[in-house]
Amino acid sequence: MNRRIVFHMLGRIITLQAVLMLLPLICGLIYREKSVISFLITIAIALGSGLLLTYLNVPKNKSLFAREGFAIVALAWIFMSAIGALPFVISGEIPSYTDAFFETASGFSTTGASVVNNVEAMSHCILFWRSFTHWIGGMGVLVLVMAIVPTDTGGSMHIARAEMPGPIVGKLVPKIRTTSKILYLIYIGLTFAEMILLLCGGMPLFESIVHSFGTAGTGGFGVKADSIAGYSAYCQWVITAFMIIFGINFNLFYLMLMRKFRASLKSEELWLYFAIIFAAVAAITYNIYPIYHNLSDSIRNSAFQVAAIISTTGYATADFNLWPTLSKAILFLLMFTGACAGSTGGGLKISRIILVYKQIVANLKNMLHSRSVSSVRFEGKPVENATIVNTTTYFALYALCIVVGFLLISIADCFDLETNLSAVVSCFNNIGPGFSKVGPTSNYAAYSVFSKWVLSASMLMGRLEILPMILLFSPDSWLKKRRKKV
Amino acid sequence: MNRRIVFHMLGRIITLQAVLMLLPLICGLIYREKSVISFLITIAIALGSGLLLTYLNVPKNKSLFAREGFAIVALAWIFMSAIGALPFVISGEIPSYTDAFFETASGFSTTGASVVNNVEAMSHCILFWRSFTHWIGGMGVLVLVMAIVPTDTGGSMHIARAEMPGPIVGKLVPKIRTTSKILYLIYIGLTFAEMILLLCGGMPLFESIVHSFGTAGTGGFGVKADSIAGYSAYCQWVITAFMIIFGINFNLFYLMLMRKFRASLKSEELWLYFAIIFAAVAAITYNIYPIYHNLSDSIRNSAFQVAAIISTTGYATADFNLWPTLSKAILFLLMFTGACAGSTGGGLKISRIILVYKQIVANLKNMLHSRSVSSVRFEGKPVENATIVNTTTYFALYALCIVVGFLLISIADCFDLETNLSAVVSCFNNIGPGFSKVGPTSNYAAYSVFSKWVLSASMLMGRLEILPMILLFSPDSWLKKRRKKV
Repeated sequence: MNRRIVFHMLGRIITLQAVLMLLPLICGLIYREKSVISFLITIAIALGSGLLLTYLNVPKNKSLFAREGFAIVALAWIFMSAIGALPFVISGEIPSYTDAFFETASGFSTTGASVVNNVEAMSHCILFWRSFTHWIGGMGVLVLVMAIVPTDTGGSMHIARAEMPGPIVGKLVPKIRTTSKILYLIYIGLTFAEMILLLCGGMPLFESIVHSFGTAGTGGFGVKADSIAGYSAYCQWVITAFMIIFGINFNLFYLMLMRKFRASLKSEELWLYFAIIFAAVAAITYNIYPIYHNLSDSIRNSAFQVAAIISTTGYATADFNLWPTLSKAILFLLMFTGACAGSTGGGLKISRIILVYKQIVANLKNMLHSRSVSSVRFEGKPVENATIVNTTTYFALYALCIVVGFLLISIADCFDLETNLSAVVSCFNNIGPGFSKVGPTSNYAAYSVFSKWVLSASMLMGRLEILPMILLFSPDSWLKKRRKKV
Repeated sequence: MNRRIVFHMLGRIITLQAVLMLLPLICGLIYREKSVISFLITIAIALGSGLLLTYLNVPKNKSLFAREGFAIVALAWIFMSAIGALPFVISGEIPSYTDAFFETASGFSTTGASVVNNVEAMSHCILFWRSFTHWIGGMGVLVLVMAIVPTDTGGSMHIARAEMPGPIVGKLVPKIRTTSKILYLIYIGLTFAEMILLLCGGMPLFESIVHSFGTAGTGGFGVKADSIAGYSAYCQWVITAFMIIFGINFNLFYLMLMRKFRASLKSEELWLYFAIIFAAVAAITYNIYPIYHNLSDSIRNSAFQVAAIISTTGYATADFNLWPTLSKAILFLLMFTGACAGSTGGGLKISRIILVYKQIVANLKNMLHSRSVSSVRFEGKPVENATIVNTTTYFALYALCIVVGFLLISIADCFDLETNLSAVVSCFNNIGPGFSKVGPTSNYAAYSVFSKWVLSASMLMGRLEILPMILLFSPDSWLKKRRKKV
C-alpha cells in the first residue's frame, strides 16, 4: 500500500470539502442566520487538516493501484461524513454527533434517511448543506476531484472504478479527467433544468434548489414534514420525471449530446428500466385506485412513488405504508433493483440484474446440453467470465451485508421484523424511507445509538458498493506490497 | 428427449407409490376406519395407471442423460403429489382438491405447512399417510426406486443428481444402486431409533411412528393442534436431537459405519452446522429468558426451535411469533441457511453458504492482488470452477424464485408483508410455519386457491432445488436431440 498517495488524495478531498462548504456559508449570510458560524468553524478545521494532510504526504512514488484506489475512496467518504456532520452539531440543530453523522452519511450516500423530527424548524443554511451533500454524493466527490484538480498521478481509473456504481465502468473518452468533466457538466445542466422547471411551477427559489439537489443525487432530503405531498401536481410530475432521468446511465446522455441517438437507444438496461417502471406504475395504479377513487391521483401517486423508489431517491407524496400489500410488495422489491449503472441511484442496478438473469439462463442451457457452452452477451458484446463471476459474487456479498445489518440492529432495537428489515434494506440501497415504523411519514430517530452507527455504515457501504469499505478494513490491504522473487 | 424412458420410469414410481400406500391401508384396517376405502380406490388408480405407463413405454433406447433425469424427477414429484392427494379428497377429510394437493405437496416436499384447521379430528390412516409422505419425500422416491428396482438403464447418476439436494452429489460406493440401499438402511435405522426412544418416553405407539416420520423427513406434520408443545421435556429433547441428526449429511453416517471417524469429523459443513446451532441457541436462550424466567425452559424451547428451523422440520413447542425481534430475526435467517447437503433437510444448505462465502473471499483477494488467482477449497479439495459458478448462480435463481412467489401471492392475498414473505420463504425452504398470520399456532388455510397452488409449486421447487421444475417447463428440454454433424 502506497500510504502517502492515499493520505495525499484524502487531504485534497477534505480541502475541496472546505471549499464546497462556502455555498451553505453564503446561503446563511443571505438569510442572516446565526448557524452560519458553524460553517466558518468547520471550514477552518477542514481547510487546516486538509492542507496539512496534502502537504505532509507529498508522494514520492506516484503509482496508484486497485487497493490504493479502494482505500482513498473509502477513507474519503468516511472523513467527508465525519467533517460534514460538524455544522449540525456546532449549530446545535442536531446536538448528538451520532445523529449528525447519520444525517450526513445519509446525505452523501444519497439515502435521505433522516433522524430530524422537525425539519421545518431548521435554518436555511443547514437545510441547504443537508441537501447539498446529496448533490455532492450523487456523482461522487472523487469524480469531482479528478474533474477539477490536475492529477498527475496515474491509475485514476482505479479510483473511478471504486467510486462509480455498476458492474462495468466505461470511459466516455480516453482521458478520465475529460470524462469526469463531461459527467459533471451534464449533471449540473440537468440540475439547473429541474430547478427552472420547478420555479416555473411556482415553487420558491430556495425550495427549488434544495429539491433539485435532492432529486439530482437521488437522495430524498426535503424541507417539509410531508416531503413533496404539499406541492402542486405539476411540481410532483416534474420531480417524478427528473427522478427517472437521474436514474439513467449518464453515458447515455453523453451519447445523446454527441448525437449518437441510435447507440444510446440500444441500451438493454435503459429499456428494462423503463419497462419495470411502466409495469410497476400500472400494477400499483390499479391496486391503489380504490383508495383515491380518481385515475389521475392514482397514476400520479403511483408514478411518483415508483420513480422515487426505483431511482432510490425516497421522496414521498403519499404514505405508501397504508397502501395494499401488493403495492408494498412491489415497492419493496424495487428497493433492491435500484436504478441503472452509471446513474446517481443506488441499489443493485438494473444491469447487474440483467447480467445475473442471463447467467442463470446460460447456466440452465449448459445443464441440458452438457457439451455446448453458452456465453452471456450484454448490450451487444460478449461479457467476460470474470465480470460474470464478480457480479454473481456481488449478489451474495450484498445479501450477506443486509443479513448482518439486519441482525445487528435487531440486537439493539426490538421493533417489528418489517421495520428492522426494511430499515436495513432502505439504508443499504440508499433509498430513505422503509415500511412500518420507518415509513415515509416517520423517520429513524427512534433507533438506538448503536443501530444508527450500523445504519450509517450500511448507507456508505451501499453507496460504494461494499468492496472499498471491506477492503479498507482488511489487513491484507495495508501490508507492504510483496516483492516478487526473480 | 427420450420420452419413452421418462414415462417408463414415471410408471414405475406411480406403481411404487401404490405399494407404499398399503401401509396407511393397513393402519386404517387396524383402527377399523371407514377412510380406509379411500386408500383402496387410490391404490387401484395408481396401480392401474402406473403399470400401464410402465408397459406402454418400454424404452427401446435406454440412454438417459441430464435432461431425462431432470424430467423424470420433476414429473415424478408432481404426479406423486397429485395421486397422493386423492385419499384426502375421497375420504372427505380434506374436501377441496386444491387443499389436498397443497397438503400432499407439503408432505412429500417435507415442508409440513398445513391447511387443516382441526388436525385432531382426522382419522389415523389419513394422519399416517400425511406423515408417511414426509418420510418418503425426505430421502427421495427415486433413490428408493433405484434401491429396490433393478434398473438396467445407465445414467441413474443423472437421476440421483436431480433429486438429491446440495451442490455436490457424491457416490458412497461405485454403484449407485448400492449407494441408494445404504442411504435407505441408515434412514430406516435412525427412524427406528427415534421411535423407540419416543416410546421409552411414554409417547403412544401411533404418535411415536408419526413423529418419527415427521422428524426423519424433516417435515413437521404432527397429530396435535399445539405440535410438540404438549409432550414431556424428554420427548422434546429426543425430537430436538433427531431433528439435528437428520440435518446432517448422510454420507457422514456411512463413513462412521465404515469406522472412518476421522474422515467424517473432518467435514467443514458439519462443524459450521453445529457452530450455527450453538450460536443461535445461545443467543435465543439469552433473548427469551425474560419470557420463561427459567434457564431449562429457555434452553429447551430455544434449542427445539433452532433445530426445527435449521433442519427445516418446522415442529414447534412455543409460539415463536411472540418472541422478541432478535430471536425472530435469527429464526428467519435460519430459514434460508437450511441443513447440510445430502441430508433430508431443505433450504440453501450449509455447504452452499460455505462455498459462496469462500468465493466472496477469493474474489476480494483477487481484487487486491490482480495477478494472483485465488481458488476455492472445500473439505480439503479444490473446487471446480463450474461448481462455483453453479452455486453462485443458484443463489440468484433461488432469490428470483422467492421474489416471484412473493409477488404472486401478494396479488391474490392482501395479508401483511411479514405474512406473505415468510409464507413463501417457509414453503420454498420446506420448513412449514412462518411468521405473523402463518406462525406456528396458525396455518395456511386462509390463503386463496391461487396462492395455495403457487405455494404448492414453491414447496416442490424448493425440495428439488429448482432446476428440475424449470427445465421440465422449458421447451428446450422437449425438443428432439440435435444430431451432431460429423
